[in-house]
Amino acid sequence: MPHPPAQADGERVLADLNALRAIGAWKTGVHKPTFSEPHARSIEWLANKLPEAGLTAAVDGIGNVLGTSSKAGPKLLAGSHLESQNHAGWLDGPLGVIYALEAARVLNPDPNVNGAVEVACWCDEEGHFGQFLGSRSFVGAVSEADIDAARDRNSGRSMREAIAAVGLAGRPRLRAVRGRHVGYLEAHIEQGDTLESGALKIGIVSSIVGIWQYRIVFTGEQNHAGTTRMAIRKDAGLALSRFCVAIDATFPGICGPRTVWTTGRIELDPGAPSIIPGRAEMLFQMRDAEASVIERLEEKLHAMAAEATARGPCGVSVERLRTGAPAMMDAAFQDAIETASAELAGGKSLRMPSGAGHDAQILATIMPAGMLFVPSIGGISHHWNENTDDADIVTGANVFVETCRRLLTR
Amino acid sequence: MPHPPAQADGERVLADLNALRAIGAWKTGVHKPTFSEPHARSIEWLANKLPEAGLTAAVDGIGNVLGTSSKAGPKLLAGSHLESQNHAGWLDGPLGVIYALEAARVLNPDPNVNGAVEVACWCDEEGHFGQFLGSRSFVGAVSEADIDAARDRNSGRSMREAIAAVGLAGRPRLRAVRGRHVGYLEAHIEQGDTLESGALKIGIVSSIVGIWQYRIVFTGEQNHAGTTRMAIRKDAGLALSRFCVAIDATFPGICGPRTVWTTGRIELDPGAPSIIPGRAEMLFQMRDAEASVIERLEEKLHAMAAEATARGPCGVSVERLRTGAPAMMDAAFQDAIETASAELAGGKSLRMPSGAGHDAQILATIMPAGMLFVPSIGGISHHWNENTDDADIVTGANVFVETCRRLLTR
Repeated sequence: MPHPPAQADGERVLADLNALRAIGAWKTGVHKPTFSEPHARSIEWLANKLPEAGLTAAVDGIGNVLGTSSKAGPKLLAGSHLESQNHAGWLDGPLGVIYALEAARVLNPDPNVNGAVEVACWCDEEGHFGQFLGSRSFVGAVSEADIDAARDRNSGRSMREAIAAVGLAGRPRLRAVRGRHVGYLEAHIEQGDTLESGALKIGIVSSIVGIWQYRIVFTGEQNHAGTTRMAIRKDAGLALSRFCVAIDATFPGICGPRTVWTTGRIELDPGAPSIIPGRAEMLFQMRDAEASVIERLEEKLHAMAAEATARGPCGVSVERLRTGAPAMMDAAFQDAIETASAELAGGKSLRMPSGAGHDAQILATIMPAGMLFVPSIGGISHHWNENTDDADIVTGANVFVETCRRLLTR
Repeated sequence: MPHPPAQADGERVLADLNALRAIGAWKTGVHKPTFSEPHARSIEWLANKLPEAGLTAAVDGIGNVLGTSSKAGPKLLAGSHLESQNHAGWLDGPLGVIYALEAARVLNPDPNVNGAVEVACWCDEEGHFGQFLGSRSFVGAVSEADIDAARDRNSGRSMREAIAAVGLAGRPRLRAVRGRHVGYLEAHIEQGDTLESGALKIGIVSSIVGIWQYRIVFTGEQNHAGTTRMAIRKDAGLALSRFCVAIDATFPGICGPRTVWTTGRIELDPGAPSIIPGRAEMLFQMRDAEASVIERLEEKLHAMAAEATARGPCGVSVERLRTGAPAMMDAAFQDAIETASAELAGGKSLRMPSGAGHDAQILATIMPAGMLFVPSIGGISHHWNENTDDADIVTGANVFVETCRRLLTR
């Protein structure tokens, strides 16, 4: 006789998510930058919860939390993160952590379940100090020199100082133990409107798109905004605006069907109302599941910069800061999510790529990995309005717990 | 028999300017934001120098320095400022202060000169905390509430805190004494290339253009840079870039011959590489000697904002932060500068408007005021490369001292 599907305690899941929302609350969301006081309290909250699932909690020297089990049998690693973007939503991160905690609470004490779910909370998935520093540390891809060099992108505070401020200085960093885990499972809000617009409940992530990031610098001539005639100006800010408009006009004709690109930050130097900016800088990002599409766009970007420089009056340079590599999700993990969705979400699931980066892409470099999405209301995320229906949160929890059971009992 | 022209001590002037340059030196210029430690030291340096000119020094509760004379006869007020823009040049401000000091040193002890030059150093001409707060305080246009509300535009530190940090908290503010001064004279570097390109030595300022400043806000929808399809984005940063490019395309057709406009600062909110900006803001400034020209441009600005809002996807709003009023320089002051230039600068002078704002426009609201310019090499200012030939500095000092003599002995 087949085992009945595992069930999450929906009320417990919602209560835990709301408990985390209350730490660092901001409007209807949270403001929990990495190593902020509310982030540190959230880590502590989780470490205190893990024993409920029979797990031994450890917080390591980069702020990762790991709950390990002494139960015999296979171990499945599951989790997400607890820090947030600035003034952002309550579910991005905590949803996956609480689903993992719930799976461990339901499955670990069950003698019919072979093995255990171990819970991970990766530090700084949101990239305040770098790129996936927590999960990359766990897979062995972060050196001490990397940590020495890392700084908060907003405050400029060094990561060492931030780590010391939350009392973690000098602790060793936890590393993945080869062969310990059958794989890694992560749940997340979709952060787009695909599930909602299709009345679907579960997204089965097929791959995580690559992210390519660039610094584009415009060099003009700083001068007085009152005494410098328009004709002789070399306004780096205006050059930047022209470049953004040119990208917007050019890229749609040569991009792929799902390519996205974004200018997330602009800085004019010196940034005073009465000074013509002599230098301007933008952070530019492109994402696609196809590296060849990005190569084409990057080539265009360089050509546009060369043209603009030749035309004058400002110089334009393009520097790649980050090279993406799309990550494939494990086929058996996708199948397990699909089967669990058929049982517990009325089959309202869809295989889809993730446009956002996640720690699962880092874990995928050393073990099989999978991800499931729940719907985002209005597709909104990274904003305090980010939300998901309580019913959808509970459905997702059920599918997640059952997926874990299936992956452990294969 | 006519009095021989007064002469400055050129070496003393250059030595004093270099002494001030050494306080807060940065590359070949200085970094002396208002109420920074090097600014406070510069104020102290000046207060200690004023007795050399027979002046009694006072530093008031807003950081103005005033050197007053007990000599009988008319008093001419002269000066400028000592703080700098961030990482800026060595002459913008100090030149006018040292010329005033030199005029007082030469003329005040001279029994043939009726009356005395009194020296003023206005705090925060560069607008770190507001707009001409020092000189406006002196003419009675700054309330205690204005000071309570003022904050450093870069650090956000309150002006009260900054005043306390340099030990001036609780001091009374000095106010102009009605009828005490025959007028106000200020020297400054031109900050443009008009004098240099005409091989001229002295600019006789006819008027100071008005400055109109605006906050233009773009409202879109903050969202995830990976999961939000291009088609449904409301990118406030892109809307801002489009607006800047549209201004650049539209304004040249409707502006006056000397109108200038500048976007000096841009901020995307939240300003992270993986978030589509939901809000963007730019500081926009226009300057002209004709208010009617600005009115026409401002009307266009509002029309463009309305069009962009109607077209979507982002809303655009234009808020005027500062309303300029061109200030006329006194005719007798202009004539005195011209006569002194004929005697001491080979007549290489030109009557011209000032595109930059200066404290003289504030003093002009309560007394006759005049300004003279010396050439700026390459027209550069508000940059550490700002410079003027030593010989031109000395010529300017001679013209300034003689102008003061003429204004006192009219």
